[in-house]
Amino acid sequence: MSRYFSLSQLQPYTPGEQPRSRDYIKLNTNENPYPPAPAVRNLLNPSAVADLRLYSDPACRGLKEKLAGLYGLTPEQIFVANGSDDILNFVFWGFPGEKGAVFPDITYGFYKVFAGLHQVPYREIPLRADFSLNPRDYYHQKSLIVIANPNAPTGLALTPGEIQGILDTNQDSLVVIDEAYVDFGAESCYPLLSQYENLLVVRTFSKSRCLAGGRLGYALGNPSVIADLERLKFSTNPYALNRLTLALGEATVAEEAYYQKISRKIQKTRENTEKALKSLGFLVIPSLGNFLFARRPGISGENLYQSLKEKAILVRHFPQERIGEYVRITIGTDEQMEKLTAALEEICHENSPD
Amino acid sequence: MSRYFSLSQLQPYTPGEQPRSRDYIKLNTNENPYPPAPAVRNLLNPSAVADLRLYSDPACRGLKEKLAGLYGLTPEQIFVANGSDDILNFVFWGFPGEKGAVFPDITYGFYKVFAGLHQVPYREIPLRADFSLNPRDYYHQKSLIVIANPNAPTGLALTPGEIQGILDTNQDSLVVIDEAYVDFGAESCYPLLSQYENLLVVRTFSKSRCLAGGRLGYALGNPSVIADLERLKFSTNPYALNRLTLALGEATVAEEAYYQKISRKIQKTRENTEKALKSLGFLVIPSLGNFLFARRPGISGENLYQSLKEKAILVRHFPQERIGEYVRITIGTDEQMEKLTAALEEICHENSPD
Repeated sequence: MSRYFSLSQLQPYTPGEQPRSRDYIKLNTNENPYPPAPAVRNLLNPSAVADLRLYSDPACRGLKEKLAGLYGLTPEQIFVANGSDDILNFVFWGFPGEKGAVFPDITYGFYKVFAGLHQVPYREIPLRADFSLNPRDYYHQKSLIVIANPNAPTGLALTPGEIQGILDTNQDSLVVIDEAYVDFGAESCYPLLSQYENLLVVRTFSKSRCLAGGRLGYALGNPSVIADLERLKFSTNPYALNRLTLALGEATVAEEAYYQKISRKIQKTRENTEKALKSLGFLVIPSLGNFLFARRPGISGENLYQSLKEKAILVRHFPQERIGEYVRITIGTDEQMEKLTAALEEICHENSPD
Repeated sequence: MSRYFSLSQLQPYTPGEQPRSRDYIKLNTNENPYPPAPAVRNLLNPSAVADLRLYSDPACRGLKEKLAGLYGLTPEQIFVANGSDDILNFVFWGFPGEKGAVFPDITYGFYKVFAGLHQVPYREIPLRADFSLNPRDYYHQKSLIVIANPNAPTGLALTPGEIQGILDTNQDSLVVIDEAYVDFGAESCYPLLSQYENLLVVRTFSKSRCLAGGRLGYALGNPSVIADLERLKFSTNPYALNRLTLALGEATVAEEAYYQKISRKIQKTRENTEKALKSLGFLVIPSLGNFLFARRPGISGENLYQSLKEKAILVRHFPQERIGEYVRITIGTDEQMEKLTAALEEICHENSPD
């Protein structure tokens, strides 16, 4: 640390490995195995690139209008950002509750980093032994509430009815539902926006919209909360979204059918993979995300991660309490999952006691 | 403001107008009138776009290596970000001095916004009557020092020798030299990095590199300061740079000759425009940026701005003390500047007392 730096308490987030070589089957950061829609891939013609000399629209009007059309909302209910991490950063910065923030003990690891960064006191509420979330634990919190739904890395989800109970009992706090993985089988709670001004739904184009490398997140919420997020954006980086990402985002919204089709395909692959893992003796959490969280009695999580890496397959292992025996496996193509299953079969054989 | 928001003191930055229609000659936000180099325009082939499903490299190694090669530095001396505003935000956040921050009274308006956002006490040091900056005013400040060089909106620049005096007398504070406009005729101070660990040079691809809409900024500094900036990045948005911008940035660095050529062209156009404005009775600050800051005795700055807008030419007017009579005119193509000159001739004629 340099002697000029004042934020000595910083505990940065550790992203998943991004290997430079292309030789791995990469199932570690919940990316989509399929490319963006053809119309999106064909978008970047030479004139779009020539326009890069001009600033992008800081109000992002075109993309907001397209998203408003998709969800039956108004552009004033929509915030767009350079990835959903940007939105979550603003949430912890601008909306701490009277008692700070609460979120589950097992969830997206960045929530804790944001709380620390903005010196927001936080409480981690333990999930049940089966990793399910008890909505009643979140009633009357007087705190910013942040819940990933489906949760990561478990894949378990609440219903909109369960979320409604949390909204009802926290009218004076912002309740943030991070729906990064909602398109793979869970039900979105954004229709509750018409009833609850304390709800903010955070979404990303990184998973179901195949744009992890394009950086595009958005939030749906009450116009006054959205205006607060805009205040923070215009106080930090008004041009946070570049022209190409805005154009890719608009083209993506227009190709909804393609993305629904590949999301269904990924769910089908997930079901097949779950069956295959169970037949190898794995315990698998019933996931509604584009990943499976699983463990194999007799083989440690660290061992599974390392053994797969030796076989050129990257998955994610979290060396932390309660989940250290698990690995999180992103759902890839059917072919990739067959290679995964074959590799796991070998690993199980190598580790069998006889 | 919503009742959940805690940052009631926020005073966001007001960016220049970004008109939705294409009918204006746009000389208001210091964009480059020429497109990116042909090799940059041709970069985004279908495979680059298909890769968008994968996260970008949060370490940005490829681009850092290219920039290190260009400047004869190491990658550890380079930070890259989603526009230089992102870097300036981190600077005010992470590096306030013992007494806060200092910067000129007339300069990039965002410095004040960042100081307010991070509750850093700041002092604005008045420029001389001719808008030149007296380096001695910045000696022994015990504060973060931020100087745009050339300064905006004046275009006046310090020499590296003058900056050296400031670095010598502020060894315990970070001295940030914002070189957004340095490629249009001023001398960069980055060679001083070999002698001063308290120097951070901030640069952007938005002006001389024709990528305002691509969002790419970088900083050159001591490895320990760069590591602190990385800490802040990994605590807020590790994937802040998307794949396309990284690729465009690398291709841009490889086309140095093209960008030097158009920067020289813009300087030539600036010289011609300065002569034309003077012949119309304007007082013009001798600028080393890609813009001119000028006033016309007898016509108010507001009047000049409005009259040009009526003639479909956008320039920037800052309704603030000391500079309210001026307009800032971005240097466009020769053809655009001829239209500007013709329009100003008409405006001068309409406003002549006889």
